[in-house]
Amino acid sequence: MKHIIYLDNSSTTKPCPEAIEEMNGALQTAWGNPSSLHSLGFEAERSVEEAREGFARFLGARADEIVFTSGGTESNNTALLTLLSSKKRGGRVLITAVEHPSVLETAARLEVEGFEVVLLPVGKNGSVLLDTLENALTDNTVLVSMMAVNNETGAVIPFKEAAALVKRKQPRALFHCDAVQAFGKIPLSLKQCPVDLLSASAHKIHGPKGIGLLYVRKGTTLHPLLTGGGQERGLRSGTESVPLIRGFYGALQALPPLERQLDCQRELWSFAREQLSKMESVVINSPDDALPYILNISVKGYRSETLLHFLESRGIYVSSGSACAKGAGSHVLSAMGLKRELIDSALRLSFSRGNTKEEIRCLCEALSAAVTTIRKAKI
Amino acid sequence: MKHIIYLDNSSTTKPCPEAIEEMNGALQTAWGNPSSLHSLGFEAERSVEEAREGFARFLGARADEIVFTSGGTESNNTALLTLLSSKKRGGRVLITAVEHPSVLETAARLEVEGFEVVLLPVGKNGSVLLDTLENALTDNTVLVSMMAVNNETGAVIPFKEAAALVKRKQPRALFHCDAVQAFGKIPLSLKQCPVDLLSASAHKIHGPKGIGLLYVRKGTTLHPLLTGGGQERGLRSGTESVPLIRGFYGALQALPPLERQLDCQRELWSFAREQLSKMESVVINSPDDALPYILNISVKGYRSETLLHFLESRGIYVSSGSACAKGAGSHVLSAMGLKRELIDSALRLSFSRGNTKEEIRCLCEALSAAVTTIRKAKI
Repeated sequence: MKHIIYLDNSSTTKPCPEAIEEMNGALQTAWGNPSSLHSLGFEAERSVEEAREGFARFLGARADEIVFTSGGTESNNTALLTLLSSKKRGGRVLITAVEHPSVLETAARLEVEGFEVVLLPVGKNGSVLLDTLENALTDNTVLVSMMAVNNETGAVIPFKEAAALVKRKQPRALFHCDAVQAFGKIPLSLKQCPVDLLSASAHKIHGPKGIGLLYVRKGTTLHPLLTGGGQERGLRSGTESVPLIRGFYGALQALPPLERQLDCQRELWSFAREQLSKMESVVINSPDDALPYILNISVKGYRSETLLHFLESRGIYVSSGSACAKGAGSHVLSAMGLKRELIDSALRLSFSRGNTKEEIRCLCEALSAAVTTIRKAKI
Repeated sequence: MKHIIYLDNSSTTKPCPEAIEEMNGALQTAWGNPSSLHSLGFEAERSVEEAREGFARFLGARADEIVFTSGGTESNNTALLTLLSSKKRGGRVLITAVEHPSVLETAARLEVEGFEVVLLPVGKNGSVLLDTLENALTDNTVLVSMMAVNNETGAVIPFKEAAALVKRKQPRALFHCDAVQAFGKIPLSLKQCPVDLLSASAHKIHGPKGIGLLYVRKGTTLHPLLTGGGQERGLRSGTESVPLIRGFYGALQALPPLERQLDCQRELWSFAREQLSKMESVVINSPDDALPYILNISVKGYRSETLLHFLESRGIYVSSGSACAKGAGSHVLSAMGLKRELIDSALRLSFSRGNTKEEIRCLCEALSAAVTTIRKAKI
């Protein structure tokens, strides 16, 4: 594979060697069914439980609060759709206007089922004010779902403060956090944070696709989305994917210390922001205090896709909006009040460990070349 | 790993080298997000689509009729719970009394939501008569779900004839088949068989755990269980697990020709049945015409778990009932009218390619040793 500059790490990351090694170990030796009563089953079960304990430690949680799922989408769906199995239908559901489609679309299903879904608006910085949440919080609010970090802009949502507010004002409402873009990047320390449910995914932290987790605070009533054999303490039926769980765990173990890594990313992000700001056509869409893993920019007068393919021809991989939105105009940038012109020319650069300033320089050169080479589009 | 005699292949199978190799290929090279608009995304997408076409060919289906899921449980849940998103709630749901828990438990949820769930009784042979189905089929029947092969006894359910009957009598009712134990073992050729939905799983055919598929006949209205990014043509959101899909495909490609393999298994199964029948304490619970991959026996006077651990001490791995039921008394054997004494002493032997007559001889010797060594339990 030729050298590439991969700046699309919020779409997915390259599996790290540690994740691959763990997966192969599970495929070759711990291949039993964790539900089997013999030693091959026990060994598989032990592999899963060791991983579960690792995730619990990482999150400041208990092992029995970790439920493995098939990924962030399933975790988010499970968190929201638990409402459908409650005895009481109806009530208010609060989500931010910038949630991932797996929250937005699932909330829309709740709406069809008789719930009132309220989208909390975001400011120009892409984040939500606690006042906005407080004003929307009614006695009949049954669930609040807020992402920790926005996947398109890196905007940091004050979910910890929001959870505390919800628990103070409406303690019976569930608080869910989609932490897919935050997990493994910022300390989540759930001991100090009263969220009831939290979603994470492996393939955003150099683990394999197809595995994620849902943190379920002890005492939270969660109705399972998948029923059957009663795996995961009845909260998620289906034979545990031992190799994927181990791969996820391998990726977790390979994470550098969070604070140190955050410093490195901040330096890289600031450099990118500074260099790109110097370019006449470039507008920075991410807020100044974004998580330094994501930088959303617009290159005025040039369509995102045209730029994306121009950059690709130079071995640079970026994204136009999120991978999940596949080409549609960003609802996130739209919620931030950006004009159509900027939305249609937006690029998301997303970093990970391994990205370098040299790569950022290449990106800037390529963008300079783009604006002098490509004919401006009429947008 | 010391040599083991693994006769628990209906719980799970050892991943084959072809599956592992495909997975590693995907992890190392096709690690992009299939939804990404750049070439890394395209390559991942191409990997997925090639696999999808392979499964379609294998099933006599179209590629756009194959939806990848996280496994048999998710496929079964999706098939049944589509009813919850229909505009019209209620109606009759027919399932056999010997379905897997992922169908039984999910049907119970439908019952709570106002559907009438009718369990079709099975005969002594563990299968369902078409007359039984026909008598239960009412105008308001909305779904019929029948497994192809029972996971505990190998009993073959006439699902093709049942599907034809349902489509003739109640064409608006959906027909779902849980083919987890049949897929890759008997020809399913869906061109000639009017099922609307069919579930399969990778880890029963030497593929990885965490991946399965749901066949959705063109024209069938299926409401997705997981919503979000709209992957799998909107029928199953969530980033596709490229490595698992490729692993499943690797396992598919490694399957020996079905008919030839069926002949081999039949010889092995008949040999096992013959040898075990000679033992005084042994009762054969599987019907004579069972799929020759599963042989359910009871060893009168001995508890399943005691026997299981005795056999394990000799390196022989079997199961007491299904792995998913984890120790509970079998609802399948109970539905067949077996006495408690036989249910509590049941063992499931399940075979795959690679198992040999020599292994069966070892099993028989070990069982002989067991009945002379272990004190009879009072059951």
